[in-house]
Amino acid sequence: MTHTLHNALLLTPGPVTLSMATKREMLADHAMDGERITRDLGFCRDYLLQLANARGIAAAIPLAGPATGANEAAIQTLVPPGGKLLVAANGVFGDRLAAICAAIGLRHRVLRLPPTEPVSAAKLRTALSADAEISHVMAVHCETSSGLLNPVEEIADLCRERGKKLLLDVVSTFGALATDMRALRCEALILGCNKCLEGPPGLAWVIANLDSLKAAKGHARSLTLDLWEQWRHFETEDSFRFTPPTHVIAAFAQALREHQNEGGQKARLSRYARNRARLVDGLRELGFTSLLPPEIAAPIVATFLAPNDAAYDPIRFAQRMSQQGFQISLRRAAVPNLLRLGCMGDLDESRMTAAVKAAGRALRDMRVTAPPPEHVLPQAQFGP
Amino acid sequence: MTHTLHNALLLTPGPVTLSMATKREMLADHAMDGERITRDLGFCRDYLLQLANARGIAAAIPLAGPATGANEAAIQTLVPPGGKLLVAANGVFGDRLAAICAAIGLRHRVLRLPPTEPVSAAKLRTALSADAEISHVMAVHCETSSGLLNPVEEIADLCRERGKKLLLDVVSTFGALATDMRALRCEALILGCNKCLEGPPGLAWVIANLDSLKAAKGHARSLTLDLWEQWRHFETEDSFRFTPPTHVIAAFAQALREHQNEGGQKARLSRYARNRARLVDGLRELGFTSLLPPEIAAPIVATFLAPNDAAYDPIRFAQRMSQQGFQISLRRAAVPNLLRLGCMGDLDESRMTAAVKAAGRALRDMRVTAPPPEHVLPQAQFGP
Repeated sequence: MTHTLHNALLLTPGPVTLSMATKREMLADHAMDGERITRDLGFCRDYLLQLANARGIAAAIPLAGPATGANEAAIQTLVPPGGKLLVAANGVFGDRLAAICAAIGLRHRVLRLPPTEPVSAAKLRTALSADAEISHVMAVHCETSSGLLNPVEEIADLCRERGKKLLLDVVSTFGALATDMRALRCEALILGCNKCLEGPPGLAWVIANLDSLKAAKGHARSLTLDLWEQWRHFETEDSFRFTPPTHVIAAFAQALREHQNEGGQKARLSRYARNRARLVDGLRELGFTSLLPPEIAAPIVATFLAPNDAAYDPIRFAQRMSQQGFQISLRRAAVPNLLRLGCMGDLDESRMTAAVKAAGRALRDMRVTAPPPEHVLPQAQFGP
Repeated sequence: MTHTLHNALLLTPGPVTLSMATKREMLADHAMDGERITRDLGFCRDYLLQLANARGIAAAIPLAGPATGANEAAIQTLVPPGGKLLVAANGVFGDRLAAICAAIGLRHRVLRLPPTEPVSAAKLRTALSADAEISHVMAVHCETSSGLLNPVEEIADLCRERGKKLLLDVVSTFGALATDMRALRCEALILGCNKCLEGPPGLAWVIANLDSLKAAKGHARSLTLDLWEQWRHFETEDSFRFTPPTHVIAAFAQALREHQNEGGQKARLSRYARNRARLVDGLRELGFTSLLPPEIAAPIVATFLAPNDAAYDPIRFAQRMSQQGFQISLRRAAVPNLLRLGCMGDLDESRMTAAVKAAGRALRDMRVTAPPPEHVLPQAQFGP
């Protein structure tokens, strides 16, 4: 398999590589209120609700823009003005949630943990006990800045026990990791079209509890990020309030059909887990060390500390990977010099094997020598 | 020329039909911080500044999402918390600006005019005299809800005379109508990638005066709609703060190259004016009446009152047009039963002739009979 730069595969943890069939849907133009976009949106909303096991209890509401915008919309619409939000943050994306609260002037507290420590019920309980005014809790399912997986069931259990409402940023996990909104009894899931759903970036979603949504009129201090208004408009007009990214919507519907055809969430998780195992095995042999132990590492992104060799230069490494058709990103990492490789997107084991070979060539070009195998940790245990 | 529904031409006033070369750019995936997207964005920013004659005095700042989001970002970032905005509104899109002010809690006044009356210096002067607290004025260049063109030079002259800062929504005109930011001395232009620039929807821009931008730190009450932060991030990191619609960006760069190759703003205006003339001539013969006299009608959208015949059914008309490969929209009109046909996008006179023929067939199917020619108004006088 050869790739020109034009057809580079993305090993970034988002945007991810899309299938050609998904991208080909962007070759047609559609009216924003026309039959095709209305049908595609209807399918997407229903499919997302089904994936979240939330049919009948929640609405799936699309918002044009980045998932961070959907997080901002969910926070300001679903946490009432008198509420107070506890943000559990152990990385770049948790910090962003706290930054949203600060920007919109919402009362909040931050439970800040190191990037290698998952949010635990114990720490959350302490934080809740310290401030009785807290009404809502928000956490990130997978911190893509480190690859850390937070235990959402444990967090949800505690929130129910303490009578706190829970919002979950599942941007980087939804579609591959199971998220059962009925079982979790959470207020909202926030996600984008990209990542594990393998649609183009540019459109985000909030799956919001219907009762909470109905009570949220007038909460938002924004026109475009008012989730209540966006929901009402879909209920009454079956369309967006403001011009949506029509090409992205058409492609996203195709991406969800492919998700369905692949076998849904379990099949996707299983493919990503295989991708990740191939990547981790290969890069360890080349001298990289996994940042996280397998029990807290998400199967959607693999994070590594570089080989302990002064000849290793992350920028040159990225350039050499790019020349071989693999795009990687050095930004948004929770710790310096972290190599974060996405396992999501239209990738399979053969492409991961090619990526490992490319990484080996990049290291040889830099004259980084692979060390003798030190310790072989057991592989991550994610399966369907 | 035959069209399947898949390849329908959009006669909506946005989204507009894109060239195939522009859409084909969406067939590749790109990393958000990679070489390609960084280069495309650099070109787009520079080209937009050049189009606005604003090199050296302004920055072009992209924001993922609808142009209404960019309007909201511009208003809350550029009008300081102590400021007061006068919104000149003569249609749906002017009303939206007022709705933004209400939503974000910004002090404002609305100068509301009928959808067929352009904003005049006289009315604006009266409104400004009535409230000395007004610091900023905002107007819409073309009200696509009616096709009405507001006289931005006249508005800008008065704002300078009265010492008010001016923000202009040029979403539906930029790229086809000349907008000289240096001459207008306005604070900001707000635009999207679609409409006259013929890129996909999903990304919007604010071209903001540099001095005003530098003074705008901390004004915004939003994380994602903070224009100052977005600008600073580009200055320091040369990238988006949050995942942008990468496919849309790549396509937009191609759309701007095509704008350049076509001959820039003047050539585009000239093509749209020819499109509009063909449409207006043809539809008048079929019994439609122009809503606006030519001197205040924008060349980007043609608006008509339906034939005075009980057999005319707007929904059936839209369906019959759709079956013949032309998508039209019946929503977002400033007056009931208005037919709004866009002249923008990858359309030329031959496609407009085909559209007129399709409209004729649709009327015949509904048994609407064309009346004898009543009055022939002179054609709109838009030329390069």
